[in-house]
Amino acid sequence: MKIIPLGPHVVVRRLEAEKKTNGGIVLPDAATKESREGRVLSVGDGPILSDGHRAIPQVKEGDRVLFSNYAGTHVQFNSEELLILSEDDILAVLN
Amino acid sequence: MKIIPLGPHVVVRRLEAEKKTNGGIVLPDAATKESREGRVLSVGDGPILSDGHRAIPQVKEGDRVLFSNYAGTHVQFNSEELLILSEDDILAVLN
Amino acid sequence: MKIIPLGPHVVVRRLEAEKKTNGGIVLPDAATKESREGRVLSVGDGPILSDGHRAIPQVKEGDRVLFSNYAGTHVQFNSEELLILSEDDILAVLN
Amino acid sequence: MKIIPLGPHVVVRRLEAEKKTNGGIVLPDAATKESREGRVLSVGDGPILSDGHRAIPQVKEGDRVLFSNYAGTHVQFNSEELLILSEDDILAVLN
Amino acid sequence: MKIIPLGPHVVVRRLEAEKKTNGGIVLPDAATKESREGRVLSVGDGPILSDGHRAIPQVKEGDRVLFSNYAGTHVQFNSEELLILSEDDILAVLN
Amino acid sequence: MKIIPLGPHVVVRRLEAEKKTNGGIVLPDAATKESREGRVLSVGDGPILSDGHRAIPQVKEGDRVLFSNYAGTHVQFNSEELLILSEDDILAVLN
Amino acid sequence: MKIIPLGPHVVVRRLEAEKKTNGGIVLPDAATKESREGRVLSVGDGPILSDGHRAIPQVKEGDRVLFSNYAGTHVQFNSEELLILSEDDILAVLN
Repeated sequence: MKIIPLGPHVVVRRLEAEKKTNGGIVLPDAATKESREGRVLSVGDGPILSDGHRAIPQVKEGDRVLFSNYAGTHVQFNSEELLILSEDDILAVLN
Repeated sequence: MKIIPLGPHVVVRRLEAEKKTNGGIVLPDAATKESREGRVLSVGDGPILSDGHRAIPQVKEGDRVLFSNYAGTHVQFNSEELLILSEDDILAVLN
Repeated sequence: MKIIPLGPHVVVRRLEAEKKTNGGIVLPDAATKESREGRVLSVGDGPILSDGHRAIPQVKEGDRVLFSNYAGTHVQFNSEELLILSEDDILAVLN
Repeated sequence: MKIIPLGPHVVVRRLEAEKKTNGGIVLPDAATKESREGRVLSVGDGPILSDGHRAIPQVKEGDRVLFSNYAGTHVQFNSEELLILSEDDILAVLN
Repeated sequence: MKIIPLGPHVVVRRLEAEKKTNGGIVLPDAATKESREGRVLSVGDGPILSDGHRAIPQVKEGDRVLFSNYAGTHVQFNSEELLILSEDDILAVLN
Repeated sequence: MKIIPLGPHVVVRRLEAEKKTNGGIVLPDAATKESREGRVLSVGDGPILSDGHRAIPQVKEGDRVLFSNYAGTHVQFNSEELLILSEDDILAVLN
Repeated sequence: MKIIPLGPHVVVRRLEAEKKTNGGIVLPDAATKESREGRVLSVGDGPILSDGHRAIPQVKEGDRVLFSNYAGTHVQFNSEELLILSEDDILAVLN
């Protein structure tokens, strides 16, 4: 079974912040000690525009992303801690 | 008698979170202990756009969905606990 | 004398929640003990859109409807307790 | 001297709620004991739309109207208590 | 030196509420004892619309106007107490 | 080095309120004792409209302006106290 | 590894406020003692407009910028303290 996010939503698996990857380290949030980094698992078909079309999502499956503190809905799925974010809460891609 | 949701609304029957289905388990919200999973029973004709048309709903009858905490209006109907959600509160389809 | 609702408004007569009708029962809100079911008595000509046209109302006279808790303005009219709702506060039609 | 309301505004003379008129009685608001019925004295040229045009007002001089609790600005004018309402605060016409 | 209001703004000289003019009297606000009547001294070129045009102002220099309680910015200019209002805060013209 | 304001922003040097200039005096705000008058030093290219164009700014370099209380961001630049305002916070030009 | 900001976001490296550069000094915020100056490291492809296009960003890599107090998300990246701002929070370019 898979989680298929709707519209502006994106499913993200949180990455351990201390895990060094290709030299780049994003330290966890000082206050919450929670990582704000994650790997995109699946992407919705984008937020709806006022004319009924949808904006093309800016992230894709596999992207390593940085998101806002406290953003999203935590979901415990198949013994993994996932996060369902609105694409607006994703600040940047780490490449 | 049936409940026919209007515009952006969707009628959902909450699913017991612990019920394992095809391997996927979404644990209930840690704070409220309430399941955030449900089965879509019926779907409105979509939210109205600024030009008077309606956006096509993203879910359909029978979909197993994941929704935001605290979303929707609880309705006790024919001895079932139903939830009338706005489609915006549905984060993902479990497929 | 009649109450003719304007624009997005709808006049509703609250139905007793415990009254069984064709098998469907919507229990009253647990907190307020107030019924959230009603019968539509009259309908305005719809909410105005940004281009000056009006959206076609989704309910019609005689519809049995389900509305949000605390929605609307209570009016005591000809010894009846009526409710003037915005159409947005009507979640579903019971059919 | 007359009060000429601007844009979306409407000047209303509050009617005594207990005054029976053609059989219809709207009782005053239970909390404030204030009547929510009035007679329209004059009407602005309508709220402005996003394209610069104005929406045609839904009420006209002489209409007997029902408005929201606490709506509008009270004005003491020529020893009369008048109310300047936004047309949005007028829920219905009593006809 | 003159005050030239920008966009949606209007410069108004507050009128003493008790001053009878052509029979019409608007009593001051009961709570603040402040007059809500004034004379328009100058008018901006109107609020901007979403297409970049400006809406034509509804008041003109010399108009006697009625405005909302607490509206606007008080300015002490050349020993006069003036008020810079947004046109939206002007409810009616007294004619 | 110069401060070049972006989009809707305007850089203003606060003027001493008591300084009489061509007969016009705007007294400082009674509560904060702070002057609300200033001289425009530079102007952004205007706020963005919903179609992606920019509205033409209403003030220009050298304008003497009156702004809202508490508006803007204070900046200490080259030993001058400057204010970066949004153009919306400028109420009027003093001419 | 690089941080690639999305949509309206901009990555900024905070500059020490006391560092004199070409004569211009922006003192830090009096309350927080934090510098509000920074150097733009990378720029997203701009905020989305209501028609689905994106507005062209107003800053570019290398710009020295002034931003609002408390704006943005702090990120510790490769032992540098970076800030991910929304372009709206950038008030001016220092040139």
